[in-house]
Amino acid sequence: MIFNMPTRYFLASGTSEGYTPLNAFDGALLRAGIGNTNIVKMSSIVPPRCTLIEPIALPPGALVPAAYASITSDVPGEVISAGVAVALPEDADQNGLIMEYSAKGERHQIEETVRNMAREGMALRGWEIKDLKSVAVDHHVQKIGVALAAVVLWS
Amino acid sequence: MIFNMPTRYFLASGTSEGYTPLNAFDGALLRAGIGNTNIVKMSSIVPPRCTLIEPIALPPGALVPAAYASITSDVPGEVISAGVAVALPEDADQNGLIMEYSAKGERHQIEETVRNMAREGMALRGWEIKDLKSVAVDHHVQKIGVALAAVVLWS
Amino acid sequence: MIFNMPTRYFLASGTSEGYTPLNAFDGALLRAGIGNTNIVKMSSIVPPRCTLIEPIALPPGALVPAAYASITSDVPGEVISAGVAVALPEDADQNGLIMEYSAKGERHQIEETVRNMAREGMALRGWEIKDLKSVAVDHHVQKIGVALAAVVLWS
Repeated sequence: MIFNMPTRYFLASGTSEGYTPLNAFDGALLRAGIGNTNIVKMSSIVPPRCTLIEPIALPPGALVPAAYASITSDVPGEVISAGVAVALPEDADQNGLIMEYSAKGERHQIEETVRNMAREGMALRGWEIKDLKSVAVDHHVQKIGVALAAVVLWS
Repeated sequence: MIFNMPTRYFLASGTSEGYTPLNAFDGALLRAGIGNTNIVKMSSIVPPRCTLIEPIALPPGALVPAAYASITSDVPGEVISAGVAVALPEDADQNGLIMEYSAKGERHQIEETVRNMAREGMALRGWEIKDLKSVAVDHHVQKIGVALAAVVLWS
Repeated sequence: MIFNMPTRYFLASGTSEGYTPLNAFDGALLRAGIGNTNIVKMSSIVPPRCTLIEPIALPPGALVPAAYASITSDVPGEVISAGVAVALPEDADQNGLIMEYSAKGERHQIEETVRNMAREGMALRGWEIKDLKSVAVDHHVQKIGVALAAVVLWS
């Protein structure tokens, strides 16, 4: 393998206003507890036997694979939301599936959608779901806002 | 180096309908045989002496670097295509070049374009082409569809 | 950790015309000196004690994490620019922050914006800036052009 296999993961989310869209994204990463790391975006699997942990302080500057959804808006008053869901299989030899979703709308709507996306993905594989975890967050835009939700892999 | 050097690669492609664009993307990755891995997108080089192999079953949840093109459409009846091309140099000390392309249109058109892109990229380097491989796939959209083609690196 | 910690970094930039947007991007990477590597995009931190170096020739095909801004235009006569800034903290135990920005407009405007973005990001952290480095580049589009600026991590 080119990269080591992740053995642990956690869910994180955050929102922020910012001077520019990227500053707002940076602020949302900071609120999520991962703003001083180098997030590498990936599609969207939890390896078999990977353990869910509470969010931990990662080494500053570490390269960290994550699946995430984020949404930016510069429309004052708009409500934006981002969510992730993790569906874990009954069969411990199989991997879990991460889904990400972001859109205008309230947190609970986006969380429901992303959970359904994870259910659909497991159904496509023909796998029973043992557990379905999710996190979502919403943000009322003042000037330039970002909402972000992530599944962070670690080892 | 931060990451290990890839030593093997293969071409893959797939298409799918889905409940959402991300579900369709997930389905296309599954059809391509890489849906239970964590794809990390990269630009677009085959290292010198990297060996072409037949697609293999990758460990579930492995982090896998890949260059890929994908296209999503929610216009019923639309034809969408994605393709990748790999141009390999005469000089075995030099690297190969991957190009990716996706657009509305039939498979053969997109494959011709992506092959020309790889030829142009090698011409820009002033390198002779020893071999030019490619794969492309098209999809007739029913509700929400994705076409995807990838070059997957491994070691 | 899943990936090794970067220990060195350099700034790079380039512009190019191309047969397609991806060919122009490939050309800009080549001009920046990183066109024969596999760039993996990441958000945007310089680890503590990571050393600034002059651009070096990276092994062909190596997987290389980088934070970058790029912009594509097919409007002849348009001026496009991309820039990156790196803000380094007074406290050597803390990480540096990379910001990326690209837009229509002259090089000096984009460079000023991206430097301000880095200042804002450090202010958000409550950290004093010891040093602020940046690079930006502009391009007058003929047919299809790309401007790109990057911070490349290495070890």
